[in-house]
Amino acid sequence: MTDFAATRAKFHLPEGVIYLDGNSLGPLPKSARERARRAIEDEWGEMLIRAWNAAGWMDQPRRVGDRIAPLIGAQPGTVVMGDTLSIKMYQALAATLAMRPERKVVLSDTGNFPTDLYMAEGLIRSLARGHVLKTVAPEGVEAAIDESVAALMLTHVDYGSGRMHDMAKLTEKAHAAGALAIWDLAHSAGALPVDLAGCKVDFAAGCTYKYLNGGPGAPAFIYVRPDHIEKAQPALSGWLGHAAPFDFDLAYRPARSIERMRVGTPPVVQMTILEAALDIWDDVDMAALRARSIELSELFIRDVEARCPALSLASPRDPARRGSQVSFRFEHGYAAMRALIARGVIGDFRSPDRMRFGFAPLYIGEADVRRAADILAGVIEGGAWNDPVYMTREAVT
Amino acid sequence: MTDFAATRAKFHLPEGVIYLDGNSLGPLPKSARERARRAIEDEWGEMLIRAWNAAGWMDQPRRVGDRIAPLIGAQPGTVVMGDTLSIKMYQALAATLAMRPERKVVLSDTGNFPTDLYMAEGLIRSLARGHVLKTVAPEGVEAAIDESVAALMLTHVDYGSGRMHDMAKLTEKAHAAGALAIWDLAHSAGALPVDLAGCKVDFAAGCTYKYLNGGPGAPAFIYVRPDHIEKAQPALSGWLGHAAPFDFDLAYRPARSIERMRVGTPPVVQMTILEAALDIWDDVDMAALRARSIELSELFIRDVEARCPALSLASPRDPARRGSQVSFRFEHGYAAMRALIARGVIGDFRSPDRMRFGFAPLYIGEADVRRAADILAGVIEGGAWNDPVYMTREAVT
Repeated sequence: MTDFAATRAKFHLPEGVIYLDGNSLGPLPKSARERARRAIEDEWGEMLIRAWNAAGWMDQPRRVGDRIAPLIGAQPGTVVMGDTLSIKMYQALAATLAMRPERKVVLSDTGNFPTDLYMAEGLIRSLARGHVLKTVAPEGVEAAIDESVAALMLTHVDYGSGRMHDMAKLTEKAHAAGALAIWDLAHSAGALPVDLAGCKVDFAAGCTYKYLNGGPGAPAFIYVRPDHIEKAQPALSGWLGHAAPFDFDLAYRPARSIERMRVGTPPVVQMTILEAALDIWDDVDMAALRARSIELSELFIRDVEARCPALSLASPRDPARRGSQVSFRFEHGYAAMRALIARGVIGDFRSPDRMRFGFAPLYIGEADVRRAADILAGVIEGGAWNDPVYMTREAVT
Repeated sequence: MTDFAATRAKFHLPEGVIYLDGNSLGPLPKSARERARRAIEDEWGEMLIRAWNAAGWMDQPRRVGDRIAPLIGAQPGTVVMGDTLSIKMYQALAATLAMRPERKVVLSDTGNFPTDLYMAEGLIRSLARGHVLKTVAPEGVEAAIDESVAALMLTHVDYGSGRMHDMAKLTEKAHAAGALAIWDLAHSAGALPVDLAGCKVDFAAGCTYKYLNGGPGAPAFIYVRPDHIEKAQPALSGWLGHAAPFDFDLAYRPARSIERMRVGTPPVVQMTILEAALDIWDDVDMAALRARSIELSELFIRDVEARCPALSLASPRDPARRGSQVSFRFEHGYAAMRALIARGVIGDFRSPDRMRFGFAPLYIGEADVRRAADILAGVIEGGAWNDPVYMTREAVT
């Protein structure tokens, strides 16, 4: 049984704040402070260039990948860190299209996070070989999978609504049609059990600054199914993905391992912080985490629906079809969210009218959820959302 | 006049070390320790998601780009940070090829850092439109520029030998032939004066963990000539390069500014460290830096040549044709470098036989150079390079 009081004690949570936005940026693990200091002062400061070997910086992208692997149902040696989720999705899609040269359709849905669609658009434009990005409604994905599809590219859990796709079923359907499946795990990794190997997923990528608490701008990860690794041609063929980077050959020859998906010099300090954050998962059972996340989300929905009739649930009602977040529609959602944040409950807002709340059992408990719903009800009932001070738009909330 | 004793005092330099490898990884600026702590504890820890606005994280890639601009002769609003040098070179080359669709040659040289060649190879393979990566000897570049060339893609200062290309002349020649010029500034930015605007360079990119001392894995920068910015089609069209990222449109529309070259979430902690490192440049005159770098390099060459006849200069003898580093060939260079490092003088080794030494006047002075040459002479004369303990190869030295 996972001890969630113990995991909570491992985070720095600011005084007076209930943090329901770990689905955007996870909070600071206490141990990350000292680990970052060590990386900066003891490794960089004292060892200088020698730290690439002596402090294990060179192997870090693979070592950290191997620590993420069990959280997403991946085998050792199938996950490597680097770059951003956008770049990792691009690598996955480029490799997929090269493995299905005769097919022209990239199938996605309108609930996908825009950057995945944008990166696909950019790749398709570059390739100029008649590929088409076909974007259907999330509920229409299954029916749209046919033998024209090269890549099924989906985000597992919708960033806005928390709606979760059936990864096993859609991947199987894609395979039956001869397509490959690429999954974006941004809102899944660390939020719920994922079984990449069991679902025979072809490629996956995710970020680590949300539920994995790696800090702002922590590197992304990419997963490649073991039997694809040697076939996946890196489109972004950087020197650290070379079979022997320090031979400085003039011609590229990809590594035979997952490291072929490395590109340039990894962000050592950010990755060290992430490595510290991953320690917390050593004692976490993903099934227990999932059960707890559902309990907390259900409690929040119940309390908010009972007290805020002006808000309507924008997430699936069935918890089995939701990730670890819940959204409510409210016409004045932007101002209401700002008013709520001013009162210490941090969620966020997604256009056009969604108030979004994430439930991370590692550091959020029942009392937090009850109190958050209570403060939200106060904001809605009290009309704080009508205060002009909360209406000015900022880039991110 | 730049006060190099004052700049030196701003770095943490380990006891007993003479650091001649700042061309690979610059040392730790003292102020970076506290700035990193603030970013981690006060911003991430206390402000959480709110820091994207409140701590200026969202604008950081452009703000930091504007601080690098004057060091490379670029106008404000033409430089933005993110990703790695490999990715930034890919963006520059992809945009260039799209601007010269009728031309098929990417011209580079054998002295280029391999990752630039590898990324070009990957892009060309993806495009599958008959592009050719033509790689000539560095001295043959000028003669090879003709009207088949779409992109002249060169590293300004050779990573191995320190040989410097004539940026003004080659860019002019490229333009005269109707080509665009892309410069990799990895060994130039912070090493010597660069005049991108004056040379009318089309695209440039560089890393910040060498002479700019941004720390291991600090983000790269990209420069786009102002009149190209709105024409440069982003191949890696990530959401933070969108004109309005937080509208979450399903279709990509590039920002009208240099920010279109942004891709995904920036590495905030690394970029904050870099921002601290850039403060040091406020009082540095690039002409004075260059003069000092030449003095130090000349002194080192003189001393080493006088005392180590077994070593032969692998860098141009004319300092006007060199960057801020000097290489010597020595058959047993690998073991000799390890022996030297064991004695506190840190340079590095590049295949097959080059011992490489960087001279960064911000923290290296005459006494360091004399002492380094003295210790090197001791290693060479004393035969320490013949000790088996130094012969085992490591990934990086």
